[in-house]
Amino acid sequence: MEFSQLWLGIKPLKGCSIKTISIVCKEHVEQACAAVWELRNELSELLPEVSFVRGSADLSIKLSIAPLTEPESYTVTSNGTSASVTGGSGVGILYGVFALLRGIRLYGFGEFEECGSPTSPLRMLDHWDNIDGSIERGYSGRSFFFKDGELLINERTVTYARLLASVGINACAINNVNVRFGAEMLITEKYYTKLTSLIELFGRYGIKLYICVDFSAPISVGGIATADPLDPAVQSWWSEHCAKLFSHVKGLGGFLVKADSEGRPGPYAYGRDHADGANLLAKAIAPYGGKVIWRAFVYNCSQDWRDEKTDRACSAYETFKPLDGRFEPNVILQVKNGPMDFQVREPVHPLFGAMPKTNLMAELQLTQEYTGQQKHVCCLIPMFRSFLDSRTCCDAENDSVGDVICGISAVSNTGDDFCWTGSELAAANLYGFGRLAFDRFLTAEKIIAEWCALTFEDELARRVTAEILLGSHKAYEAYTVPLGLGWMCKPNHHYGPDPWGYEFDRWGTYNRADRNAVGVDRSHSGTGYAALYNPPLAEVYDSVNSCPDELLLFFHRVPYDHRLHSGKTVIQHIYDAHFEGYEQAEHFAELWKTLEGRIDERTFRNGCERFTEQLRCAREWRDIVNTFFHRLSGIDDEKGRTIYP
Amino acid sequence: MEFSQLWLGIKPLKGCSIKTISIVCKEHVEQACAAVWELRNELSELLPEVSFVRGSADLSIKLSIAPLTEPESYTVTSNGTSASVTGGSGVGILYGVFALLRGIRLYGFGEFEECGSPTSPLRMLDHWDNIDGSIERGYSGRSFFFKDGELLINERTVTYARLLASVGINACAINNVNVRFGAEMLITEKYYTKLTSLIELFGRYGIKLYICVDFSAPISVGGIATADPLDPAVQSWWSEHCAKLFSHVKGLGGFLVKADSEGRPGPYAYGRDHADGANLLAKAIAPYGGKVIWRAFVYNCSQDWRDEKTDRACSAYETFKPLDGRFEPNVILQVKNGPMDFQVREPVHPLFGAMPKTNLMAELQLTQEYTGQQKHVCCLIPMFRSFLDSRTCCDAENDSVGDVICGISAVSNTGDDFCWTGSELAAANLYGFGRLAFDRFLTAEKIIAEWCALTFEDELARRVTAEILLGSHKAYEAYTVPLGLGWMCKPNHHYGPDPWGYEFDRWGTYNRADRNAVGVDRSHSGTGYAALYNPPLAEVYDSVNSCPDELLLFFHRVPYDHRLHSGKTVIQHIYDAHFEGYEQAEHFAELWKTLEGRIDERTFRNGCERFTEQLRCAREWRDIVNTFFHRLSGIDDEKGRTIYP
Repeated sequence: MEFSQLWLGIKPLKGCSIKTISIVCKEHVEQACAAVWELRNELSELLPEVSFVRGSADLSIKLSIAPLTEPESYTVTSNGTSASVTGGSGVGILYGVFALLRGIRLYGFGEFEECGSPTSPLRMLDHWDNIDGSIERGYSGRSFFFKDGELLINERTVTYARLLASVGINACAINNVNVRFGAEMLITEKYYTKLTSLIELFGRYGIKLYICVDFSAPISVGGIATADPLDPAVQSWWSEHCAKLFSHVKGLGGFLVKADSEGRPGPYAYGRDHADGANLLAKAIAPYGGKVIWRAFVYNCSQDWRDEKTDRACSAYETFKPLDGRFEPNVILQVKNGPMDFQVREPVHPLFGAMPKTNLMAELQLTQEYTGQQKHVCCLIPMFRSFLDSRTCCDAENDSVGDVICGISAVSNTGDDFCWTGSELAAANLYGFGRLAFDRFLTAEKIIAEWCALTFEDELARRVTAEILLGSHKAYEAYTVPLGLGWMCKPNHHYGPDPWGYEFDRWGTYNRADRNAVGVDRSHSGTGYAALYNPPLAEVYDSVNSCPDELLLFFHRVPYDHRLHSGKTVIQHIYDAHFEGYEQAEHFAELWKTLEGRIDERTFRNGCERFTEQLRCAREWRDIVNTFFHRLSGIDDEKGRTIYP
Repeated sequence: MEFSQLWLGIKPLKGCSIKTISIVCKEHVEQACAAVWELRNELSELLPEVSFVRGSADLSIKLSIAPLTEPESYTVTSNGTSASVTGGSGVGILYGVFALLRGIRLYGFGEFEECGSPTSPLRMLDHWDNIDGSIERGYSGRSFFFKDGELLINERTVTYARLLASVGINACAINNVNVRFGAEMLITEKYYTKLTSLIELFGRYGIKLYICVDFSAPISVGGIATADPLDPAVQSWWSEHCAKLFSHVKGLGGFLVKADSEGRPGPYAYGRDHADGANLLAKAIAPYGGKVIWRAFVYNCSQDWRDEKTDRACSAYETFKPLDGRFEPNVILQVKNGPMDFQVREPVHPLFGAMPKTNLMAELQLTQEYTGQQKHVCCLIPMFRSFLDSRTCCDAENDSVGDVICGISAVSNTGDDFCWTGSELAAANLYGFGRLAFDRFLTAEKIIAEWCALTFEDELARRVTAEILLGSHKAYEAYTVPLGLGWMCKPNHHYGPDPWGYEFDRWGTYNRADRNAVGVDRSHSGTGYAALYNPPLAEVYDSVNSCPDELLLFFHRVPYDHRLHSGKTVIQHIYDAHFEGYEQAEHFAELWKTLEGRIDERTFRNGCERFTEQLRCAREWRDIVNTFFHRLSGIDDEKGRTIYP
C-alpha cells in the first residue's frame, strides 16, 4: 500500500533557526495527543537531533486549551525560538498545530502569528463510495473505505484523517448517497465494530462520521411492508433501530439522505413530503445528538424535451421552499451550489436565499464529473470562493451564501490511487476546499500559493503550478460550454463534447439551439426561473440587458448576433472562447514541461500524461462546439480561424 | 425450462382425410432417423389413433434416399392418401419430411408436390453468445448455449436444432466473434467432450458446428510470444493444435474469425494481410475438411470526423479487393450486406461484385441491433430478398448477390426467452431467413404467409400479422432514419434517436447536416465510394439525378429543397415519412389489438407490451428527427403538422 502524503509530505526545512524543542502536553484530550504526534512526526524529521520530553516544564512549544469562544478555534504564536499554540478544545489545538506546521513549512520557523476560527461549523466530505469498492463518478481508483462489502481501516485511513484535519474538515460521509448493493446494511450489527473503530480514529482528528442510509430501510433492512414516514410502525422501527445503532456505535454523526431523487425511494411513494421524510429520521436520532443531512437534489427526471415550461432548474426550489420552517432542528438541507448539477458555470441556487427558517448547507463537487474528470486540470477554488461570496439578497444583514449556510460539503475526489486524486494537481481542490470551508475569507490566490508551496520545493514549480491552477477553470469553461449553457457533454459518463447529447433526453438539460438562436428562456416570458431570486437579483437575471454575460444563455434565448456586454456577438464569443481556451490549455501544458527535472519524476509524468489527454480532448471540444454552432448559425469566424464543416 | 415450439408447435390438423399411416425407413442414416422421429412426433399428435410400424411394407409415407444431384435436395409427393419423400441424402429426407409436415399444416393432407433444392450450399446462423451466458446485441434473454463458462446441451438445444433444420439451416457458429473472457479456450481439451456431443446432436439435423476463434490464440491459448501468421512456430502451433482438436472433436465445421476489426487481434499487428491471416488457419484445418469463415468487417475505427475523405464505407473494399485470388480454397469471406453495419437501409456491399476469385458469403443480422431491438416489429425478409436479388453487374451471366455467393449467414436473434426471440413476431425473421437462405426465389409474401399460418390458427390473426410484418420494415425506416443516412441512433446501445450521437465520433458515421444541406458526398467529388461499384451501377449511384431516392443521402449531399424523383423536396420527404411512419406503427398496434381472444394470451400480451414501447419510441423518433431538421433548415412542414421547436 504505497501512497503519497500529499501536502503533509515532509519537506526539508529551510531557514529554521531553532535547535532544541521540548513539548509538554498537560491535557489528555485525544486530539491534543494527535497534535503532539504530528509535531513529533514532523519536527523529528526536520530536526533529527531534537529530543522530546513528555511532561517536562521546559517548553519551547506550548499547547494549551484556553477558553476561546469557539472550540475549533486556535491561536499560534512563535517568536523564532519558542512557539505557543492555544486551542478552544483538543480539536482547536490540533488545528493550531497543523497551522503551526504549515507556517513552519511555508515561512520557516521565525516570527509567526495566526488566529483561526471556522467560518462554518460543519465542513464535510461526501464520498460516493460503494461497498463493493467502486466509486460513483470516481476518477482516482477504487475506494479506500470499502472492498467487497467490508469496511477498511488501515494506514491509509489514518493518513486520510490527518489530511482532512490538517485543512479543517470535521465531518465525512463514507458511502454513496445512492445506497444499494448491500450498503443498506451499513446500519446493522454487521458493521457496528468497524464503524466504532472508524469513529474512534476519526475522533482523534476531530472528524464526525456520517453514513448514507436508504430511506426505505424499514423495508430493505427491517423487512416490514412500508417505509411511510407517518406510519407508526415505521416510526417505531427507526426509533428502535437507531437506539440500538447509536448505543453500539457511539459518536456517530448522523445520516446523509438522498430521497425521491433519480429513482431513490422517498416519502413521495406514500403521498408525504420531504419534511415528513427528514423529520422521521431526525426524531429517531435526535436523542443521540445525531443530525440528518437531507439532499435537496430533487427533480423530475422524466421530463419531456417538447415541454418548454417545465424547468429542472425550478424543481428543488418548488419542492423545498414551501417546507421552510417545517424541518426539525437537527435537519440540515444540503443544497448544490447551482440549480442543475455541478456544471462548469451555474447561477447560485435560489434556495440559498429562500429558506430563512431552515438549516442550509452547500454541496460542492470536488470529483470533476463535469469539469474534466481529473484528466483536465480544473482548479475549482476560485469558483467556490466566488460562490460563497455571492449575495442572496435575502434581507439578512450579511446575505452572502457563506453567511446563510451552517455547513459546507463537497463530493470527494479521492480514491486509492497513489496520489489520492488521480491527477496530482487535483489534490489542490481537496486542500483548497478544506481551507476555504474553514475560512471562507481566504483568497483563492492565497490557498493555491499555500498548496503549491507545500507540494513543491522548487520556486519555479510553485510559480508555474499556481499560474496553471488559477487559470484552469476559466480555460476549461472557455473551451467547453459557453455562456452558462451546460450539458454539452457526452451522456452517462459526462466526458468529452456532445452538443446535443442531452438535448432530447428526459433530464431537463437543453440548450434549444437552432439556426437562429440559442439558450433557454428562463425569464418571465419563459420558464419563470429568474423570478425565484430575491430582488434585485430577479430583475438582474430576468433582463437580457442586465444578465451577466457568463450566464446569458442560462437565462435567455438570443440570436447568434446578439451583442454581449463585452461588445462581442454571442457567436464570436463562442468562437473566441474556444480558440483561446484551447490555446490556454496548450500554454499550461508547455509550462508544465518546463518542470522536468525540477519536481519528482512521478508527479511530472502524471502531469504530462494528463496534459496530453487534456489537449486531445480540449481540441475535440473546441472543434466540435465551433462546428456545431457554425453548422447552425452559418456565421463565419471574424478572424478566419479553422472551423471544420 | 419452459419454452415455445415456435412454428413446430403442434396445431390441430384440419381437413386431413387420411386415417392410417405406416412408415418404413430402410436407410439408417442418422438424419433419416430424425425425420422418422419428426413424423412420429407430429402425426401421432395429429392423428392419435394412428399406429406406426417400423419395417413394414405397408407404406403410406415412403422415405428413400435417391440419387438426386444435390444431397440436401428432396421431393415430396402426396395424393391425399399416401405420400412419398425422396432425399439426396439423409438430410434431404429430413428436409423433405419437414416440407411434408409444413404442407400438411398449411394445406391439410391432400394433393401435394414439392421439390426442394438449396440455392445456397451454406446456410448459417452466427451467435454472438459469450461463454458467461450474456449475448452481445442480444434482446431475447441469455444464451442457451453457454452459462458461466459451460457449454449447455439439453432439451432446448434439441428443439433449436429441429427449428433450424425445419427451415433448412445447415451451419451454426455458437459463440461471439469477439472471442474473449475465456472463450479463447473453446478450442482446448476442456470443451472436447461437450463439443463432440453438440456436433452429434447437430449432425442428426444436418447442422455443422462452427466456433469462433481468437486469432491470437497462439498467445492466449498456446502461450507463445507471437501470433504472426508467417512465423513457422505459429504455423506449427495451429497445425498441431488443430490436428488434436479435429481428431477429438470429429465433424467440426471450422472456424469463424473476426480479425483486425474493432480492436480484435489480427495479422496487421505483424505487418501481414488478411490473406496471410486466413490462410494460416485454412491450411491448419484443410486436412480435416474444415472451413475458415473470415469476416470482412474491417475498418478504421479511429476516424476523425474532420476528415471528409476517409470513408468507412470504402474500407472493406480497399482492404479485401486487392487480395482476390489469394485465399485458400477452404476460406470463405463473410461480407455484411451493406458497407456500414446493418443499418435499416444501405446499398449492397461493393465487395459482392469485386471478388470473382474468392468464396463469398453474405452476413445479415436477425438480431435487430439497429432496427428496433425486438421491441419494434421489423420484419427483415423483404429487405433480405431484395438484397439477394440485387445485381452486382460483375460480368457474370447471373450477377445478382444470390448468384455470386456460396453461403449466407445471419446473426441470430435468439436467446433463452420463452418465445426464443424476445418478440413473438421476431420469430418470423428467424423462420424467414432459413427459408430464404434455402430457396432465394421464395417471395417475402409467401414466406410470411407460411409463418403466419404455422403460428396462428385464426384466419384473422394470420391476415393481420402478415399485414403488420410485410409493412413493418418500411414503417420502421420511415419513422427513423431517412433516405439512407443511417446512424441517427443513440450511441453504444443503438436504441432510440440521437441525430448527432454519432456525428463527431471516431466511427466514420456522419450525416454532415447543417443549416443548408444534408448527406454524405460519396460521389467522385466526395469520397469516391460510388466508383467501387461495377458499371453501370457506379454511374447510377454517382449522379444525384439517377441515384435512387431511398439511398440519396447515403451517396450525396444535397440542399433541403432538393427535389426527389418522387416529386417531394428532401425536407418534405423527411417530414412526411416521419408522420406517416408513425401513423403506420399506430395502425399496426390497432390491428394487433383486434386479435384479443383470437390468439393465445401470452402471445397477445407480448405483442401489446412491445407495441406500447414501439409507439413511445417511434414518437420520439418522429419528433426528434423532425425537430432536428427543422431547427437546421428552418423550413416548415407544408401540411402544418406539429413539429416541436
